[in-house]
Amino acid sequence: MAIAWSEKASSMEVLAMPPPLSPPVILTQDELKKIAAYKAVEFVESGMILGLGTGSTAKHAVDRIGELLHLGKLKNIVGIPTSKKTQEQALSLGIPLSDLDNHPIIDLAIDGADEVDPYLNLVKGRGGSLLRGKMVEGACKKFVCIVDESKLVKHLGGSGLAMPVEVVPFCWKFTANKLREMFEDSGCVAQLRNDCKGEPFVTDNGNYIVDLYLKKEMGDLRVSSDAILRIAGVVEHGMFLDMATTVIVAGELGITTKNK
Amino acid sequence: MAIAWSEKASSMEVLAMPPPLSPPVILTQDELKKIAAYKAVEFVESGMILGLGTGSTAKHAVDRIGELLHLGKLKNIVGIPTSKKTQEQALSLGIPLSDLDNHPIIDLAIDGADEVDPYLNLVKGRGGSLLRGKMVEGACKKFVCIVDESKLVKHLGGSGLAMPVEVVPFCWKFTANKLREMFEDSGCVAQLRNDCKGEPFVTDNGNYIVDLYLKKEMGDLRVSSDAILRIAGVVEHGMFLDMATTVIVAGELGITTKNK
Repeated sequence: MAIAWSEKASSMEVLAMPPPLSPPVILTQDELKKIAAYKAVEFVESGMILGLGTGSTAKHAVDRIGELLHLGKLKNIVGIPTSKKTQEQALSLGIPLSDLDNHPIIDLAIDGADEVDPYLNLVKGRGGSLLRGKMVEGACKKFVCIVDESKLVKHLGGSGLAMPVEVVPFCWKFTANKLREMFEDSGCVAQLRNDCKGEPFVTDNGNYIVDLYLKKEMGDLRVSSDAILRIAGVVEHGMFLDMATTVIVAGELGITTKNK
Repeated sequence: MAIAWSEKASSMEVLAMPPPLSPPVILTQDELKKIAAYKAVEFVESGMILGLGTGSTAKHAVDRIGELLHLGKLKNIVGIPTSKKTQEQALSLGIPLSDLDNHPIIDLAIDGADEVDPYLNLVKGRGGSLLRGKMVEGACKKFVCIVDESKLVKHLGGSGLAMPVEVVPFCWKFTANKLREMFEDSGCVAQLRNDCKGEPFVTDNGNYIVDLYLKKEMGDLRVSSDAILRIAGVVEHGMFLDMATTVIVAGELGITTKNK
């Protein structure tokens, strides 16, 4: 279950939106995502090297950056996309692109997340893009994460939804079983992700995704992260620990910004 | 430089070969590899699930297993190959094969190594096969490593030859640079491995190999291993720590067997 961070509210900057007119305007989840995305783009300055996120929330940010470039309000931006999908979107918007090989230091990345815990640790990759995002966001001076309030959790895995792990296709069942055994005490179920045709979903890097579903907390996140990475068939996992520097949360009552 | 394990000799079982006739018979490196391989195959029993290694030394072991099957001295063997190359070799020899998905517990694996330190830690993968080997050998009750004496080192990386790291092709330069920086104090050089045509070498899993060359020891191996695996573009590295249960070394003076 998603939860509010009420116990953390004191450390946040809350920007209340104007009181709703009657009848109250009910914002859709997509509208909330857009509000968070636009707020994040306020951090963007001309001349920046920008990590461009992937997913339904980040898409709004990329659209907005393209719009500001066309309006001439932003100049000399170089985008580093976190997926092939975002690369295509950015190209269609005319955003100049490069990559980490040419720009190993990124000024700012804006990306969504599937879960955010009170310490700004994230789960990402339910959309299938986690490895490239982790590479790009690990190279950033500043990483602004944008979510609607449904993404807030008390602890990672707490939404009951998937915690993705990218694995090599070779003997993926063996790897999935190792993962399941590792988190047996947390009631872990490990499932290969399929695409809409029922075939294994293939990542941008030619790998598979094993989704972990946890009934209980997995314990110390750093320890769990290292343990997952030590499994030989694992390429990367979807926990982004201590990487986000700012999280912008859009909710019915306004925008909340939390900084590291 | 490769070195003898003289300081460890007391803990080893040394099987001296008969004193050489004069003029002394000088064994080639390949003959030494074959001696170690044949010795290891003595551990094989009918009915075993067997991890089949990759490389010039392991090839002799696979040949020998095939031979013993044909002679009827071994029966009901199931081989789990550690590479596509070994899979082809084993098929050509008529060794029945399966995989980790069907046999997640392996009785015995026999494989070579590029370096062996006094604590039976290994470097593997100079031939390009490390990830599948690590998966298979991590699933073994017993892992017998076979080498000629030129592979013995005081510390991993001590031969001055490559320490391979399998990385995703996406922005490999960025990943290689992260690896180089990580071991800067050890005088690390990181190089993409090329094939004979000068193109990037591609592993069985569709990835690249970055070879690390170290001038000095890398420090605590477990710490280094975890640090390498935490780099998002890294899939696996060639250090096999605490995995070999027995190492068989063939040298001019005989066979040395060291057990964990």
